[in-house]
Amino acid sequence: MKGVRLARNERVDSLDHLGRRIIQRTDGFRFSMDAVLLAHFPRYGKDCRVLDLGTGTGAIPLLMAENAAYVEALEIDSSMAGMAARSVLLNGLEEKIRVRCGDYREIRKLVEPESFDVVLANPPYGSVSDGPVAKGTQVGARQEMTATLSDVVRAARYALRYGGKFAMVHRPARLAEIFAALAANQLVPKRMRFVEPKAGKQANLVLIEAVQGGAPGGLIALPTLRVYDGNGNYTPELLEIYGKH
Amino acid sequence: MKGVRLARNERVDSLDHLGRRIIQRTDGFRFSMDAVLLAHFPRYGKDCRVLDLGTGTGAIPLLMAENAAYVEALEIDSSMAGMAARSVLLNGLEEKIRVRCGDYREIRKLVEPESFDVVLANPPYGSVSDGPVAKGTQVGARQEMTATLSDVVRAARYALRYGGKFAMVHRPARLAEIFAALAANQLVPKRMRFVEPKAGKQANLVLIEAVQGGAPGGLIALPTLRVYDGNGNYTPELLEIYGKH
Repeated sequence: MKGVRLARNERVDSLDHLGRRIIQRTDGFRFSMDAVLLAHFPRYGKDCRVLDLGTGTGAIPLLMAENAAYVEALEIDSSMAGMAARSVLLNGLEEKIRVRCGDYREIRKLVEPESFDVVLANPPYGSVSDGPVAKGTQVGARQEMTATLSDVVRAARYALRYGGKFAMVHRPARLAEIFAALAANQLVPKRMRFVEPKAGKQANLVLIEAVQGGAPGGLIALPTLRVYDGNGNYTPELLEIYGKH
Repeated sequence: MKGVRLARNERVDSLDHLGRRIIQRTDGFRFSMDAVLLAHFPRYGKDCRVLDLGTGTGAIPLLMAENAAYVEALEIDSSMAGMAARSVLLNGLEEKIRVRCGDYREIRKLVEPESFDVVLANPPYGSVSDGPVAKGTQVGARQEMTATLSDVVRAARYALRYGGKFAMVHRPARLAEIFAALAANQLVPKRMRFVEPKAGKQANLVLIEAVQGGAPGGLIALPTLRVYDGNGNYTPELLEIYGKH
């Protein structure tokens, strides 16, 4: 494996994308469909520079690196950042993806202002006020243990050039807070897509793309994405995103 | 017709709801599906007092009066307000619905503060900045000729009691502006539903319900409503709203 070493509680999984692989813990956080949907949501410009805020084990950069000139991936948890960096090596993508261990609440110390074309974020969904996290949960997982929604949007604003795009996946339950945080940071939502588990179910994910300094209005509500059809199989739209159409 | 008189360019149409009828102009604005969807969107409390901002010809009050103790309907255009008032008489609903000719930008002169449980609005969708309106278009129609999105939300805030609900139908394109106007008026969105013409098409309407003074978060994204199925027929969900399931 190109000299990449695995710890005892780690394994190599397929990303099901261009033959790429990812190192994940056997007992910890693993990448989910949310990361796949987000990675494929923005329209990437040619030669774009992309920043992934809170990359975890690096799934998002590994899923979209071919669309970018350069991807920088920040992760606060040094153990996860290490796994992400080894996965980059494992896939021979070290020329394209740079993993850094850092806290995006201190983004001013980490990256140049307005230096990215696209910023991605799959942040923790739960609010700090939602209560305690299960013991043993990894940092950077499902709850805002460290950074808040407002922190991640502010970091995106700082890193994005004028006209650049911020794309995020989150819970519809927090949509009003998302819109407020975007507005407070001159990010104007232009595309959004609800994701429903299947027909007749409430959406449990929302994909949103905002343009830094965009004109008001003009938000496109893309056709709602349904994950499963009536027979429990993935829908054609979902398979298309997974590149299996 | 109970002594209700029609002008030469008016006619009586069915509302397709509890046998009710509505007076509409043969050459002017007629009520649309948008009004039907909005009228049936909020969950009305028992004995609630409802205010309809910009009622037009009164379609919304006529479509939901049975769910309320009292409905007040404001309309700036005296000709349309007159038609709405005559439709109320035509349906024998004068004990339930009161039509008033007035401008909701001056709501402080018209209604008591925080005196309603539910406020409804099907305002013009276009922004003033979208350009001129076709000549001959009735006031109160598809464009913000008089009041803006911000005006209607502010009026709702004034009229609603603490914990009361504001429900609106609008265009997804303006969702960010809608969320900003709601937030500026302590209205927290709790339920929303996109309406797609058919599968695979972008939503062209959004129904939204906000609670005055609600806690942040907790927005429910209801299953996206599709109007037509693949054969061009109304979907079962749409027919259910129309009471034809």
